[in-house]
Amino acid sequence: MLALTMGDPAGIGIELTFWAWHALRRTGPAFVLLADPDWVAGLAKGVAEMRAVSSPEEAREVFGQALPVMALSGDAALASTPVPGRPDPANAAAITGSIAEAVRLAMDGRVDGVVTNPIAKSVLKQAGFPHPGHTEYLAELTGASGSEVMMLAGPSLRVVPVTIHVSLRQALDSLTSGEIVRVARTTAASLRRDFGVSNPRLAVAGLNPHAGEDGHMGTEEITIIRPAIERLRAEGLDVSGPMPPDTMFTAPARARYDAAICMYHDQALIPLKTLDMAQGVNVTLGLDLVRTSPDHGTAFDIAGEGVADPASLIAALRMAGLIARNRSAA
Amino acid sequence: MLALTMGDPAGIGIELTFWAWHALRRTGPAFVLLADPDWVAGLAKGVAEMRAVSSPEEAREVFGQALPVMALSGDAALASTPVPGRPDPANAAAITGSIAEAVRLAMDGRVDGVVTNPIAKSVLKQAGFPHPGHTEYLAELTGASGSEVMMLAGPSLRVVPVTIHVSLRQALDSLTSGEIVRVARTTAASLRRDFGVSNPRLAVAGLNPHAGEDGHMGTEEITIIRPAIERLRAEGLDVSGPMPPDTMFTAPARARYDAAICMYHDQALIPLKTLDMAQGVNVTLGLDLVRTSPDHGTAFDIAGEGVADPASLIAALRMAGLIARNRSAA
Repeated sequence: MLALTMGDPAGIGIELTFWAWHALRRTGPAFVLLADPDWVAGLAKGVAEMRAVSSPEEAREVFGQALPVMALSGDAALASTPVPGRPDPANAAAITGSIAEAVRLAMDGRVDGVVTNPIAKSVLKQAGFPHPGHTEYLAELTGASGSEVMMLAGPSLRVVPVTIHVSLRQALDSLTSGEIVRVARTTAASLRRDFGVSNPRLAVAGLNPHAGEDGHMGTEEITIIRPAIERLRAEGLDVSGPMPPDTMFTAPARARYDAAICMYHDQALIPLKTLDMAQGVNVTLGLDLVRTSPDHGTAFDIAGEGVADPASLIAALRMAGLIARNRSAA
Repeated sequence: MLALTMGDPAGIGIELTFWAWHALRRTGPAFVLLADPDWVAGLAKGVAEMRAVSSPEEAREVFGQALPVMALSGDAALASTPVPGRPDPANAAAITGSIAEAVRLAMDGRVDGVVTNPIAKSVLKQAGFPHPGHTEYLAELTGASGSEVMMLAGPSLRVVPVTIHVSLRQALDSLTSGEIVRVARTTAASLRRDFGVSNPRLAVAGLNPHAGEDGHMGTEEITIIRPAIERLRAEGLDVSGPMPPDTMFTAPARARYDAAICMYHDQALIPLKTLDMAQGVNVTLGLDLVRTSPDHGTAFDIAGEGVADPASLIAALRMAGLIARNRSAA
C-alpha cells in the first residue's frame, strides 16, 4: 500500500490520480489518496469510483473497487474550493498537510512508500513554505536533511544530478569532489537496495565539452571529478568517467552503466526527457522512506481539461511499489 | 561533384570513404577524394575500385565505376607512409594541403561543395597548425573569418551552438546578445538558402534550469537571451524562447521549430547525439562554400579494423549534395 499526496488541487494531479487508479486497480500497486473526500467525490462523478476510508488497511480492501481517499486532519482541510488552473495560497496548509500525513504513515510503517503529486513552489512560497521543494521538505520531515539525492529514472536511462535547482553558474561554483562522492555512494547503495542491481556500474559525466580534452577545455575534470572517481574506486565501486557528456547517452554507451552521475541539472534532464519524456520518474534516494513522484509540474495551463498524460504518475506508482518490494525482500 | 578531403590518413577516414563510395556510386552525389593515389590504391585492393584522375570533370565520368582520387600538388604529398592508429605530424602538410585544395576547387566553381574527413587537432598542432579546428581554417581560406557558424544536423534535429569549443565556464563568460543574434541570423539565412525552409522557425534555448524561472535560477535569460530574441523578432524572424532546455528536445517540442539555437556545446550535442548518434552531420554555415563533415573524430583506436560506421560520412556527403542543389536552384 502506497500513500499518494494531493499535490496542488488546482493542478493536474487529481485528474491524473483518477487515470492512475483505472490503470492500476487490477494489477496494483494499491494506493490511498490523502485529500478531502468531498472535493474528490465531486470531481470523480462519472470518471472513477471513489470511497472515503479511514485507514490504509481499509484502503487496501477497497482499492480494486474504488479509489480510496483518506481525509486529512481538520487543520489541514481545504480552505477554499479549488478551481482548476487557479492556484490559491490559502490551500497551502492542505497541500503540505497531505505530504506530512503521507510521511507519518510511512514512518509508522502503515504504508510502504510515498508518491507525491505535483506542487507549485511559487504558490507555497507565498504562503510561507520555506523549503526549495518537495524533496527538501521530505528530508526534513524524516530527519535526513542533507542526505537526499534526486534520481530521475526512465525506461532507457537513470540520471542523478549532483547540483540541481541552481543557476548554471552556481552549479559550476558549488561543484565539489565531496558532493560527487556523496551522491555516487547514495546512488550505488540505492541501486543495490531499491533496484536489485547487485554490482552497480556508475558513469560519471565530465563537466566540459569532450570532458575537457585533458585540460584544454576546462580543468574541473582534473581538479574535481577525477579525484572523486578515484575515491569511489578505492571504495570498490565500479565507476567509469569522466565521460564526454555528448556521447555518454547514446544507446551503446547507456548499455555500459546502471546510472549516470551528472554535474548539473540539464546535463541529466536533457537526455532523460529527450529519451523518456512521458515516463520519467523522480525518485528520492538517501531517505529512510520510499518516495517517488512524476517528472512534471502542476501544468495549471491544462488543468481540468482531461488532456494531461498520466504515464509519469503511473510509472511513479509502479516504481514505488517495486522499490518497496525490493526493500522488503532484502 | 563534391570534393572529399583525406583527413588524417592514420584515422578511419579512408576506410569510411570506401564504404561511402559503395553506398553512393549509383545514386550520387558523386565525389572526388583528394589524396595520394598510390596510398589509396594500396588500401583499396579487394575493397573498392579506385582510379587516379586529374580533374573533377574526369572524376564525374568515372564515379559510377571507381572511386576517383585526385593527387595533391607535390609539396602536399604524404611525407611518411600512414600507419592506421598511429598519427604522424610529418603528414600535416598533406592533411592541410588536401583541405586547401578542396577549398580552391570550390572557390573556382569546379566542385559544388567540400566534405571533410576527420582530422586530429592535437596532431596538426604539433606541426604548427595554428587554427582551433577545421571550421576556422576553412573560414580563413575563404576570407570569412568570424562569420562561420557550426550546425549539427540529424534526421530528428538541427542544433546550432552559440559558444563551442571552450570550457563551460568560458561559455558562460563569453555569451553575449550580439553573438546569439549573429548565429541566429546566419542560421535563418541558411535554413532558407540551403535547406529550403522558406519561413524558418528558430527555438532559442535558455541557459539555466527551467530557463531560469523568471530570474530565480540565473539571470542570463533576462539580461542576455531575451534582448537577443527581441532584436531577432524586430527583424521579422520567427523566434521562440528562451525555452526550458530539458523539455525543448522532446518529439512534440521539436515539431515546432526548424533549428535550436543553443547556448553551449553540450546543450546542443547531448540531444543531437542521443537522438541521431550515427547520422549527425556537421554543417558549416556563414561561408560562401558548401561544407559538411561527419560528426565524429579520427577514431585512431579502431582505425584500420574495418569496424567504423560510415553512416555519418554518407549523411555528410548526401547533405552537401542537397545543399548544393538547393543553392543552384535558388
